[in-house]
Amino acid sequence: MGHVQGGAAALSARIAQGRGLEPADLVLKGGRIFDLISGQLVESDVAICGDTIVGTYGSYQGKREIDVSGQILVPGFIDTHLHIESSAVTPHEFDRCVTPRGVTTAICDPHEIANVCGLTGIHYFLDCAAQTLMDIRVQLSSCVPSTHMETSGARLEAADLVPLMDHPKVIGLAEFMNFPGVLMQDPGCMAKLEAFQGRHIDGHAPLLRGMDLNGYISAGIRTEHEATTADEALEKLRKGMRVLIREGSVSKDLEALVPILTERHAPYLCLCTDDRNPLDIAEHGHLDHMIRTAIALGASPLAVYRAASLSAAEAFGLKDRGLIAPGKRADIAVIDSLETCHAAMVFAGGVLADDEGFAARSTTPPVARGSVKAPRLSAEDFRTAGNRAETPVIGILPGKIITPHLRFEIPPVDGDKRPDVSRDLMKIAVIERHGKNGNRATGFVQGFGMQRGAIASTVCHDHHNIAVVGADYADMALAANRLGEIEGGFVVTLDGQVLAELALPVAGLMSLRSFEEVREALVALRAAAQDLGVTLEEPFLQLAFLALPVIPHLKITDHGMVDVDRFEVLP
Amino acid sequence: MGHVQGGAAALSARIAQGRGLEPADLVLKGGRIFDLISGQLVESDVAICGDTIVGTYGSYQGKREIDVSGQILVPGFIDTHLHIESSAVTPHEFDRCVTPRGVTTAICDPHEIANVCGLTGIHYFLDCAAQTLMDIRVQLSSCVPSTHMETSGARLEAADLVPLMDHPKVIGLAEFMNFPGVLMQDPGCMAKLEAFQGRHIDGHAPLLRGMDLNGYISAGIRTEHEATTADEALEKLRKGMRVLIREGSVSKDLEALVPILTERHAPYLCLCTDDRNPLDIAEHGHLDHMIRTAIALGASPLAVYRAASLSAAEAFGLKDRGLIAPGKRADIAVIDSLETCHAAMVFAGGVLADDEGFAARSTTPPVARGSVKAPRLSAEDFRTAGNRAETPVIGILPGKIITPHLRFEIPPVDGDKRPDVSRDLMKIAVIERHGKNGNRATGFVQGFGMQRGAIASTVCHDHHNIAVVGADYADMALAANRLGEIEGGFVVTLDGQVLAELALPVAGLMSLRSFEEVREALVALRAAAQDLGVTLEEPFLQLAFLALPVIPHLKITDHGMVDVDRFEVLP
Repeated sequence: MGHVQGGAAALSARIAQGRGLEPADLVLKGGRIFDLISGQLVESDVAICGDTIVGTYGSYQGKREIDVSGQILVPGFIDTHLHIESSAVTPHEFDRCVTPRGVTTAICDPHEIANVCGLTGIHYFLDCAAQTLMDIRVQLSSCVPSTHMETSGARLEAADLVPLMDHPKVIGLAEFMNFPGVLMQDPGCMAKLEAFQGRHIDGHAPLLRGMDLNGYISAGIRTEHEATTADEALEKLRKGMRVLIREGSVSKDLEALVPILTERHAPYLCLCTDDRNPLDIAEHGHLDHMIRTAIALGASPLAVYRAASLSAAEAFGLKDRGLIAPGKRADIAVIDSLETCHAAMVFAGGVLADDEGFAARSTTPPVARGSVKAPRLSAEDFRTAGNRAETPVIGILPGKIITPHLRFEIPPVDGDKRPDVSRDLMKIAVIERHGKNGNRATGFVQGFGMQRGAIASTVCHDHHNIAVVGADYADMALAANRLGEIEGGFVVTLDGQVLAELALPVAGLMSLRSFEEVREALVALRAAAQDLGVTLEEPFLQLAFLALPVIPHLKITDHGMVDVDRFEVLP
Repeated sequence: MGHVQGGAAALSARIAQGRGLEPADLVLKGGRIFDLISGQLVESDVAICGDTIVGTYGSYQGKREIDVSGQILVPGFIDTHLHIESSAVTPHEFDRCVTPRGVTTAICDPHEIANVCGLTGIHYFLDCAAQTLMDIRVQLSSCVPSTHMETSGARLEAADLVPLMDHPKVIGLAEFMNFPGVLMQDPGCMAKLEAFQGRHIDGHAPLLRGMDLNGYISAGIRTEHEATTADEALEKLRKGMRVLIREGSVSKDLEALVPILTERHAPYLCLCTDDRNPLDIAEHGHLDHMIRTAIALGASPLAVYRAASLSAAEAFGLKDRGLIAPGKRADIAVIDSLETCHAAMVFAGGVLADDEGFAARSTTPPVARGSVKAPRLSAEDFRTAGNRAETPVIGILPGKIITPHLRFEIPPVDGDKRPDVSRDLMKIAVIERHGKNGNRATGFVQGFGMQRGAIASTVCHDHHNIAVVGADYADMALAANRLGEIEGGFVVTLDGQVLAELALPVAGLMSLRSFEEVREALVALRAAAQDLGVTLEEPFLQLAFLALPVIPHLKITDHGMVDVDRFEVLP
């Protein structure tokens, strides 16, 4: 899909400016291009006409000229798989925060917001994508809800997705997480795969190997970001998949995969972040962080920068970008050095990503306000009935989303199994909040280190119901109810008070505030959680994945505790 | 564009067979895959379901099994730029001749036949393309006629091409030869470029460099096959073009470009033949010849085989091929060794390319029969008037299509400038044969070595009018008239007799006979030309390019002698 800005007049201007017959709209003068074909650094002007590069390896004059001497020019980076909602801000705010790091294309799967409000959420992302400086592309969410064992706010079937297939901002079908459904040929899965044959279908198949992997790929699935070992990544590469190396806030695969990030493989590798929270983005970076880390770990700059842009453009059929060359989209990061990758300036489609550039964007009103429709709760709603003392408990491995299936004796008192601080056994509850059925499920989790109070969140993958973890029922009820009042977000409560909170009023997932304000609030929330005795570094991040019943081994949803290995809700 | 064979049932079978749950339709057992990702040779079965590979790097059972032990499996080769008409046979016959050499995809520009009969010719190719075993893709001819200084049988404007843009067998706009028209922004050129923005536009820009090259590429032109030096190829690569390394019968660039055919560049390089005649194909080969020659010249097998398939698939957005991997089209060449590249078996879309496979194809009736509409000529029609003795003469450089602009004194005798065997100055004539205007032009050419008789051809790039070269006017008239009787082709005459001929009744360009019969006839024509004293190795090939007014320096068309440097017809 090419840019068709301005029709015949634009084409005419591009040819004339490329030839140097008239001054280019913009010339970046005196820098060095990192040429991803030859691997050399070459001094060169870069002439830009509108949103398109029209001249390289030549000397140009411009109506506007920017001196970039001493700097290196690289093609803008392409995040090949992410969920913008995980940044806790709107797409426009994500743009403002991340584009200046050099990311000029982001291929996202909006399944978080789709789980809350269906096509309304996808349309919201498509509308924003037309306005941001970075080029946001949207994949059509394939697994909403992710399983039958949770209550989402919406369902998306093939018939919902097909009308959007040809939207200029859409790239195919999003990560097909339900790989058992592919292998078992579940009818709903097959309908989606069939509809998208010949188009891009993104994959998600952690640990899938051998002949089952062959069957999965034969369904037409082209890309994959769940490879966590070099061996698994190599098998997928050799079987024709493009492997997207992922470094997110939760899932960090870069170090394990960097050994295969060689020049030989780089044309078939890409980079992605999947879920990356605002604190990580602020502290370490986004794709720029991956680039500098990969080089520090020994990968060649040519291999890394190819994966970051050119190979990604190829993998997704974006023929108009990935190289600083005539005819390509003017997506350029002006950086200090290849190894440090700090962008002084970033151009996205020829527009400088600075305050002025961001301010000039049109905006889209948010959707899915007031999305928390759970009834008000009281302390009694957090009681857990049960005759037998033996109780399944979700175990936490810090920094991982796999959760062991533990078992503890928790004898009921007055018919209620209660939290036990001495054994770090906290009560966890998931409350359906989309106005569908008012489901409530309770259970136990070990590993927070919490000693008092409660924390609650509406970021709870993928159904994003209310999840609450606490030592005290009244504080749990307060936290859950407060979420209803602020239209969703994160809350920390203690002794009947709200210690800290962050409202995420867009679908209960995204803030309407600036990125900087969100970060401050997250820092305060972290500190407040510590006041409850919580020992986890990222309690809300950890909490976000305790309700995801496609990741082993024990989880909880609004349906109840889920034994993932058996793929069923516990009685 | 993906294959969508059989819909939902086919998808289901692919998944099940890939997983090994049921026997695959076909299994190639015991061979070694040349893995283009890792560069390794790996023992592996290859399971195929219908037209799709569904399993590799596993052990499979098949309803049908073929033992390929001791052999190497490579992805089928992709000729990224060619004119099938130059093989002198129909697309079906080209398929029969070339597919067994391992070529499973051919991206052609049918501008030869389009010059004769316009859209009828393009539709003929599209219909054949749906029936051949190799996947023939058609680019929409962009320059028919090639200039204003010749009379073609048809003209194609943007409005003629646009309705075919989305045809499943079409890939964009064909080689944009009129690069002066691009740079000067000729309205007809701009209309075509504008219509195809965002789609594949193939290039043709010999010796175009620097800022003019930037302007040309900025028009959205993505690929290019005219680079004849490594330096020129590298400039084009670094400016974002995919360079198609060409080895045809006339233009041979492989040796000059092989130094850049490295692993670093291979993802951005492809192979092509452009114009390759049946004798060369029979004696040396097709893309297989390029592969073994490149390796013999020192290129790494990985680089060469990537260029031959994977990189070519990428360059043209053919996501469903280029690798032996699940989900890809079953295009497989079974060869003896990487270095010798002799295919024992070739599968195209899962069909074995043997006699049975070819016999099972549907066929398309030929078009443009009776396309030679020139009036009968007599000896007098070859007289050349002129008062001044100084005469422009086309010089011949054997094996090249560039022709020096020579000057000789040829004093008229009885008002006619005559051939002069002692100085090797033969009469050349071009006669309009499309029934448009009956134009006739005469001139002189030096370099054939002819001493008697005449040769004539309707293969005369690109307008394909009748071209005759001779020492004797009566023999020239006989040859030209004979062409009319046989519906076009090649003829050699001497002393009032036809010594040898080959009818090319499909548009005056392609034979209805088998490839083997055509070769025999070409050998006989070559021998007959020698009987006339002709010293050129390939007289008809040489003749075919003497009327192409986009190649410097002096040419002749039905309008007259053309000074190509001044881009004008001589008075």
